[in-house]
Parts: sequence; C-alpha cells; structure tokens
Amino acid sequence: MEKKVADKELKELGKRLVKDIERGKNPSMDVPIRTLSNVIYSDKSKMITLGNKIAKRYFFNVAHVRKFTQTTEVAALARDLIEAQKHMSLREVFYAMRRTLPNSNIDIVNEQVESNKAVEDLELITDLLREQLYINANKLGAAAGRIVIKDKGDLIDWSKLGSGGWSIPSSVEELEFKKVDAKFVLYMEKAAIWERLHEDKLWDKMECAIIASQGQATRGIRRLLQRMNTELGLPVYVLTDFDPYGIYIYSVLKTGSISLAHISARLAIPKAKFLGLTADDVIKYDLKRQIIKFKDVDLKRLKELSKYDWFKNKNFWQRQFKMMEELKGKVELDALVTKGITFISDKYIPEKMKNKEWLD
Amino acid sequence: MEKKVADKELKELGKRLVKDIERGKNPSMDVPIRTLSNVIYSDKSKMITLGNKIAKRYFFNVAHVRKFTQTTEVAALARDLIEAQKHMSLREVFYAMRRTLPNSNIDIVNEQVESNKAVEDLELITDLLREQLYINANKLGAAAGRIVIKDKGDLIDWSKLGSGGWSIPSSVEELEFKKVDAKFVLYMEKAAIWERLHEDKLWDKMECAIIASQGQATRGIRRLLQRMNTELGLPVYVLTDFDPYGIYIYSVLKTGSISLAHISARLAIPKAKFLGLTADDVIKYDLKRQIIKFKDVDLKRLKELSKYDWFKNKNFWQRQFKMMEELKGKVELDALVTKGITFISDKYIPEKMKNKEWLD
Repeated sequence: MEKKVADKELKELGKRLVKDIERGKNPSMDVPIRTLSNVIYSDKSKMITLGNKIAKRYFFNVAHVRKFTQTTEVAALARDLIEAQKHMSLREVFYAMRRTLPNSNIDIVNEQVESNKAVEDLELITDLLREQLYINANKLGAAAGRIVIKDKGDLIDWSKLGSGGWSIPSSVEELEFKKVDAKFVLYMEKAAIWERLHEDKLWDKMECAIIASQGQATRGIRRLLQRMNTELGLPVYVLTDFDPYGIYIYSVLKTGSISLAHISARLAIPKAKFLGLTADDVIKYDLKRQIIKFKDVDLKRLKELSKYDWFKNKNFWQRQFKMMEELKGKVELDALVTKGITFISDKYIPEKMKNKEWLD
Repeated sequence: MEKKVADKELKELGKRLVKDIERGKNPSMDVPIRTLSNVIYSDKSKMITLGNKIAKRYFFNVAHVRKFTQTTEVAALARDLIEAQKHMSLREVFYAMRRTLPNSNIDIVNEQVESNKAVEDLELITDLLREQLYINANKLGAAAGRIVIKDKGDLIDWSKLGSGGWSIPSSVEELEFKKVDAKFVLYMEKAAIWERLHEDKLWDKMECAIIASQGQATRGIRRLLQRMNTELGLPVYVLTDFDPYGIYIYSVLKTGSISLAHISARLAIPKAKFLGLTADDVIKYDLKRQIIKFKDVDLKRLKELSKYDWFKNKNFWQRQFKMMEELKGKVELDALVTKGITFISDKYIPEKMKNKEWLD
C-alpha cells in the first residue's frame, strides 16, 4: 500500500518532467519554500507548518540546475529502493549519489549536506515522508510496556524483553499495533531514566508504555509516538529535566520544528503534555539543593523559548520561565534519587499523574 | 550468587576499616595506582592491564581524606543498592552522593567526575565490576541473530524482533544464553550498517549474531561481546570504517583501554578479529573514488596508533597504516553501497569470511 503510493508519486514527478521535455518546455518542479518567511505556527493545527509560497525550479537555469539534478537523482534512487524493497541510510544515499557526470568533472554531490537537502526537497515536492522513500536516518531508542506489535512478520511483546526492551528502528512505517493494554505513553530523553522506570516496572504498575531516546528524539521515535497518539488514542507525556533544553525537546515533539516544518503533520503531537520537572516540583519536593547553575547560553536559550508563539500567551508557561530565571539553574530528573532510589517511580510520576499536574 | 560476592567484598572492606579504628590505627585502603606508569600491555594476556603498584590511602591525611570519604560513601551506597536489588545510573550516584557533611559546608562531591572516580576506585579496591555494584552507565546498542537469551525471567529470541532488534541494557551481568544457533558474532560501530545487515537478514543467511553500538562501544556492549566470546566460544569480528578511529575502536575492544585497564579481564576480547575495511579492500573493490580526505588530526592519530604495542610488531598492520597514509583519507563502510545496495551483505562480508581475510 505505502509502496504503491510512493511509487505512483515518483512516477508522476517523472512523467511531468518528460511532458515538459516533449513539449519543448524548460523542465521545472514546484518546490515549496522552506525559509523562515514561509514557516508559520498555526493556532488551529497547533503545529509549525509551511506556508503556501512556492518556487519554480528550472533545469535550464544556471542557478537551479545543480539542485534540479540532485532532486531527480535522488528520485530515481528512491524508485530503485522501493522496487528492491530495500532501505538506505542518509550516509549511503550520499555515496550512492556521489558520482561524476559522464564527460565532465562535475560530481552530483560533494557533501552529505547536499544529498540530505535533496532528500528533503523530494519530500516537499512529492509530499512523501523520507521513510516512504525508503531512506533512513539514525536508529536510536528503546521501548517497553503493555503493548504487542507486529513488525516484519514478528509478533513482539514489549512486556517480555528483559532489561533491554525493544530497540526502535529508524523507520516505523510498517509496524502494526496488535494488542494494546496501555493507557498512556511516557517518553523521556534520557536512557538512564528509562532504565530506572523499567527496573521499577512502572509500565506494569501504571499500565503504560515507556519510550526513551538519548537526547533529541529521532524521527523514528517521534513518528512512533505520534502513531501511538493518533492511531491508538494514547495520551503522550513528556518527561524531561527542568531546563531550557528539556522544554525545547517537548516543544519539538509537540509542535514540530522549523527545519522539518514540511512534515509536521507526520511527526508533531499537538496533544502531547509536559510531565517533566517544573519549578513547582522543585519547591514541593525540596530540590533547590540540587540546582545546577545556568551558563549564559542557557539563560539566552530560556529567553528565546519564552517568546515562542505557543508559549508566549500561556501564563502557566511564562510563570515557569520566570521561576526558572529566578532559580538560575536547572534541576535534572536524576536528582529525584536524593528522595529515594525509586522515588520517581513510586511517588513522583504516580502523584503527578493522579493530580493531573502536567503542562499543556 | 553475584549479589553475594559483591556484598561480601563490600562488607570485608568495611570490616577492615572498623578493625583499623578499633586498634587505634589510621584507617587505610590499598588502592592500585592507575597512572600511565602502572599500565602495561601484557604480551601473554594480550591485554592492557594494571601493574602491581599500590598506594595506601589514609583517612587522617589532609591530601587523602576527601577521596577516602568519597570511596566509603559510594561503598555504602552500593551496599544499599545490592540490598534493594536496584540499579542506579552514574548520574544518579552523583546526586545520591552530593550531600553536605553535617555541621560543615563541605559537600562530599561537587562534580560528577568525582563520583565517577570514586566508583572506579571502589572497583579497583574490591576487584568488583561497577555492574556488580549495581551502578550503570549508558544504555546503547541493538542485537539480532540466531540466539535466544533469558533476562529478568523473559525468554528473548533475537531472531524474532522485527526491524528493531533487542535493545542492549547497560548491564548484561544477569543475562543467560539459552539457545545458540550462531557460529560467530559481527560487531559494528554504526547503527546504520546494522540496519543494512539486518534488513538483508545476513545473520540468518550466515548463521550469526549482529551487534551495533553508535560510535565507541559501551561497557554493556563490550561485556556482552566478551561473554559471547568466552562463554559461548563464538569468534567476534569487528566491522569498522577504514580510518584511525575505526581501528582504535577495534583496538579498545580487543586489548582494553588505559582508563579501564583495571577491568580489562572483564571487558577485553583478545581473540577479536578485524573484519573492517582495509587498504586492500579499497583497491580490490575499486573504492579509491570514495576516499574522504584526512585532516591533520587524523594523520596524527594514525601515527599514534601505529606505535601501539600490539600493532608495532605486526607487519600486516604496519602495512595497513602505511597504505592508509598513502591513500591520505578514510573509506567508510557506507561507501560499499556504490557497488550495489546489498553488496556488503551479499558479497563483501561473505567473501571476506570465506577467504579468512580478517586481521588479528
């Protein structure tokens, strides 16, 4: 199914170009503009999305021809991948595209940043996800919980994978949810916190699933969380440190990011809630002693965050930002261990969930 | 079993200190010295190990008392963890130790680097692995292949985990191998290459297991590979890029590292073989076109590597280093894709294995 959609889109792109050539026209593609001037936060969809501005890209145009060629090259490559039912990593795509044009000394791409851009352009032009083009990025992250999935013919029970859990692949497009005995999903940026909750069997006690990345979530993880939210109707809670970086991770998961604004609809989770540490938690649980002082760059980041469209009109977020500025430092989730080894699993999360103490 | 050993060691450390106090002696600990002067490469064990130099650390000594206190603090914490059968991450250990001594303004630790060192000292003093002390570091990496393990009561078949595989935990001490239908293990530093081999079902075709990290292997991964090598008798092959960094990764896996010299016996795999790209492969498979030029720092790294004890007397390694210097750049495994999407799985690895083209 997915295969057919992508294959059809790519064929149509090719046919349009051939038609241009047959009619003696300058072959062209419509490429939605991806600069800041065309990125907007929509109050309706609650996501960062692209506006309607489109640029024409022509083959017979010295300023356009290089990118034009790169886009058609990656489109041809993607068709081969779909045909062969094989995925390539972005690094492999770079090498596969890095050839010299016959009778010239011009390489189609010199750096991976060019092939990456070409892949993103193809996403924009065809409205297909990179994953549908059989191109993968990083594999990262682990999952555990009361969910059974089917992937590549295997039935995988996330509750029966020992201390390790399921390793999340770079693409989750073909994964199916088979049995869901979870009421919500907890996502965290730190694998060490995941191991804490997993060892404490939090997902069993609270009937949920737990998912971790290591720092910023990969596209695979974001898409998995989004699918669990939209297809399974499971609320997604984001557990991060009390610092600008943690809140930024939440912001990207919830509303999308500027660089990937063209696929917010496939990655963003507008209903995600922030369950991470708040200034109120710092006071309630007596964690002031655990503050780690901000550097100037953190304070700058905090200022920027507070001006984001989706934060600037929310009093409870502005209150957090103000208190963070006054506390002059961050508090990490790991610091909850000072209240007891399993305090985070036995008290912090259950209590916040029970009292609905999340931020939106 | 493991629990008892660690518990006993920690108790004995405590008893020795109490005895010193009861006898009116200055309490002391014997700490093997971890500076370069006491690190040697043993030609017999083929590992980097610690020499016999030992330093006495006293409580009543202004220069020693801080570290002395940190070590006893982490020993007490480890006993609590073992008692509770709960693990802590290094970050959590930092917070758990970061308390102020009563009636003073002195904190036991100020930075995580101090608590990390205290944990390593405790490893040295007790001859226990950090994992046996219930202290974990990073969780990273994925496994797939013809192996069934048992972990935390779950039977986990590495051949039935879809496109993701098993997510490797930070500690593999308690994992048991239940069914092994693999003839060898392939370890690679790049998750993207793991996804390539996994999609191509290489582990099924070649009857093996595949294990990936993302860059330098964590202790969990190293220990897992070592256990597969020693307990299961499976040869371990290391698949890396053709560059100094790739060979360094191989070197650490095989012989250990200077900073962890005190636990080489629990981490190093002297029998590991290098299956990564060689200069000969670059020529044989016509990959010169794919060379990415070295920076000065790479050339410096190359010079250093060539002088390592375990490389300096091996002609075939010196030949590789010399050819690498002449090629003036690295070649990545990802570049094999220029020979065909599945070239690495269909030809490169099977051919090298068949012809025994690995380096020792």
